[in-house]
Amino acid sequence: MKLQKFAIADVTLERTPGTEAEIFVGNAVDERHGGPITIGYGRYAPNQRLTETMAVDDVMIVLAGRLSVAAQEVEVGAGPGEIVYMPKGETVTIHAHEEGALTAYVTYPHWRTARE
Amino acid sequence: MKLQKFAIADVTLERTPGTEAEIFVGNAVDERHGGPITIGYGRYAPNQRLTETMAVDDVMIVLAGRLSVAAQEVEVGAGPGEIVYMPKGETVTIHAHEEGALTAYVTYPHWRTARE
Repeated sequence: MKLQKFAIADVTLERTPGTEAEIFVGNAVDERHGGPITIGYGRYAPNQRLTETMAVDDVMIVLAGRLSVAAQEVEVGAGPGEIVYMPKGETVTIHAHEEGALTAYVTYPHWRTARE
Repeated sequence: MKLQKFAIADVTLERTPGTEAEIFVGNAVDERHGGPITIGYGRYAPNQRLTETMAVDDVMIVLAGRLSVAAQEVEVGAGPGEIVYMPKGETVTIHAHEEGALTAYVTYPHWRTARE
């Protein structure tokens, strides 16, 4: 693996597997590249909501917009420059606010193969 | 591990180990917390430079400012919302531009224990 740089324009966004919500993800680095982690971007349309039990450790960095994430015992809100850590095993509901949200994410291990 | 949210105000920034440059890092999650990854924030003063051989896979998300990262065969520049992936084993020189930079980072495994 070599040094690489990514922007959102470098990824192909596709609908998050398993949801009808307008929530799109695009991996820049993943299991196809031989390293241990997945890196990508997410785009949430306004007022979209997704509930998921985490198959991997997932770090979401909010780049624009605002979202809330709720787990069993806690709910957090995050805006630009803030980080939400969703550990493996947690069941979380992510709710994008009215302006939607753009995020970057890093998962360990790879989320796509962990879900299969 | 539980769902958590972080902002830069939640971390204690300290000078990057092994450098005299004005480059500061603060872990929000690391080896003390029992998970596989480290999460933190970095702050680069203007025109600072750091060369390091990566002991871990390190993903740097630029939140503000601008920096360049050079490895043996490639140099990349990154600004807000862009991601630089520095794989384990690469020797990189990070150079913050005149406005400095604020970054978030995720490493696998934990950078602090990997350096010891």
